[in-house]
Amino acid sequence: MKEGREVTIYDIAKSLHISPATVSRSLSNHHAISSRTRKKVLEAAHEMGYRSNSFARNLRMQKINVLGVIVPKINSHFISSVIAGMEEVASEYGYRIIISQSMESMQMEKERVYTMFNNRVGGLLVSVACDTTNMKHFKLFFDKKIPVVFFDRVFEGNGNLNVVIDNYRNAYDITRHLIGQGCKRILHIGGNQARAEYKERYRGYRDALLEAGLVCSDELLLINKLDEKAGIEAGEKILRMAERPDGVFAANDICAAHCLQTIKAAGYKVPEDICFAGFNNDPVAEMIEPHLTTVNYPCYEMGEIAMRSLINQLSGSRIINAAGSIILRSGIIVRASSLRRKSS
Amino acid sequence: MKEGREVTIYDIAKSLHISPATVSRSLSNHHAISSRTRKKVLEAAHEMGYRSNSFARNLRMQKINVLGVIVPKINSHFISSVIAGMEEVASEYGYRIIISQSMESMQMEKERVYTMFNNRVGGLLVSVACDTTNMKHFKLFFDKKIPVVFFDRVFEGNGNLNVVIDNYRNAYDITRHLIGQGCKRILHIGGNQARAEYKERYRGYRDALLEAGLVCSDELLLINKLDEKAGIEAGEKILRMAERPDGVFAANDICAAHCLQTIKAAGYKVPEDICFAGFNNDPVAEMIEPHLTTVNYPCYEMGEIAMRSLINQLSGSRIINAAGSIILRSGIIVRASSLRRKSS
Repeated sequence: MKEGREVTIYDIAKSLHISPATVSRSLSNHHAISSRTRKKVLEAAHEMGYRSNSFARNLRMQKINVLGVIVPKINSHFISSVIAGMEEVASEYGYRIIISQSMESMQMEKERVYTMFNNRVGGLLVSVACDTTNMKHFKLFFDKKIPVVFFDRVFEGNGNLNVVIDNYRNAYDITRHLIGQGCKRILHIGGNQARAEYKERYRGYRDALLEAGLVCSDELLLINKLDEKAGIEAGEKILRMAERPDGVFAANDICAAHCLQTIKAAGYKVPEDICFAGFNNDPVAEMIEPHLTTVNYPCYEMGEIAMRSLINQLSGSRIINAAGSIILRSGIIVRASSLRRKSS
Repeated sequence: MKEGREVTIYDIAKSLHISPATVSRSLSNHHAISSRTRKKVLEAAHEMGYRSNSFARNLRMQKINVLGVIVPKINSHFISSVIAGMEEVASEYGYRIIISQSMESMQMEKERVYTMFNNRVGGLLVSVACDTTNMKHFKLFFDKKIPVVFFDRVFEGNGNLNVVIDNYRNAYDITRHLIGQGCKRILHIGGNQARAEYKERYRGYRDALLEAGLVCSDELLLINKLDEKAGIEAGEKILRMAERPDGVFAANDICAAHCLQTIKAAGYKVPEDICFAGFNNDPVAEMIEPHLTTVNYPCYEMGEIAMRSLINQLSGSRIINAAGSIILRSGIIVRASSLRRKSS
């Protein structure tokens, strides 16, 4: 085979000493071709690097299907665990996945959606970008009835399946726990409130405070990117506060852990002076000292279930889809960062 | 547009009130078509979800090229940082990337390579699986002169570009540092020795010991998966040893940190009783107490440079490629886990 040139059915025919018509018929699954010949042709086509629409169609007919995954960013234990769960189920059913990042931008998400469409993926799994305000860019998939499953960051009422956790309930529960440990002035570090998921975590926190008759003010709310830098800056800000909080609930563990480390380095005791709680059960939660109280986010299971739902839809079963949303079991994990000896 | 049916040039023609021939010519960049008409047709094709070989070709001609990335697993800070660096450069040049995991299996890697080929990626960036023993499965790309750049886990002498760090040198330097801190019995926790990268880290460690006249025995070498579980088990094993090491150098930080935590929980002091060193400069290195001495692996830069090299090759510049390998600057970072007060 000459380098750089596209392989044709004539090249395959020549290498197998059969007619081009036989190759063409094999590639299009023609009934007149024996399965032995077809297999031989497919293998040769595969090896020689033949690619064409009909061959791609044939690959699809063989159910070697490719599914697309679009995530905001592959930079967290959360996302990598979700993807691990997806990969596990996909490989069980003979599917392969390709992954793309929207980099937290709706514009880039649009482009990724189109790239996936043009790559003819059999289905799509999506957690949307921070600034995604609508779902118009998924219309290509909806119109063609190519299934799309959303997970973690989703849209309500889109008619498609969402796989989520109860953000409100977990935030409410963890704030109640901090109150139970004697915290009276609890600060919340939240993510972009345009996203329902972060808004729900804030609402859960707020309702628990109001219910207990505690102060819930703008002064006790910090909104940032929830990354390492944001955690350190939040810690510095808390250290400068005239009236220091005695509890901190951050919307993720990375931010909570770096905030905790900053406060501790300034000489304050955790949990005696300030209790800390995070969200996700990231590995850092058990690395930081004291270990961090957090919400157990079932990320691996989320990946498994989202993928299983997608594959169910591909195989014609739309039973789960009828549900609209799947809410996974989650709950809080209490560790030393919020357990005051006097109350334990 | 009817749902579920492929969009044709006739649909596009109808929606724009122009002839199918004009649509066809626009999609194939025919010279007789004005750029205004072509733009209108391309936009309509895009919106309506038209997909065909010629349209894909056209997209490629517009340089909206897709590049493929194959990694062992997206489960580490290292890999996510490399991908972040790649994404940065790709978007700067108007490329999009799709990512696939080999799950540390050569067989799955083969399949991913073929999926990428069939998706007609313009180039490939690869870090190979743990058990990949040859490069035959990349022949499809080599034959067609589609550029492939390997990073981190590479093959020597494959004629393609490798982007790496000096594993031997860094391991040698960090072991020398431990010896300088008074360690006389240093244990190494290494990865799969079939992979040159881990073998080199072991060799660097061994040569530093031999040079200093220290013991280098099988008893002081543990080979495992370098994950959290392996780190804990290594710690338990060390605790059971009759003659305990006074220094541990692990081939990554995750393993080192969990081993350190296990040893510390048993009542030993770090670095007084045992010094610890890791590899990668993962965020856990600064989360664990005491902070972990490690090798600063320039992962983000590795992603940037690998992507830049690939794009250079795509644009016809093969200057860097002539080099065969790019070795990135790296070096050790000394932190409290190996700094004994008596020597500091």
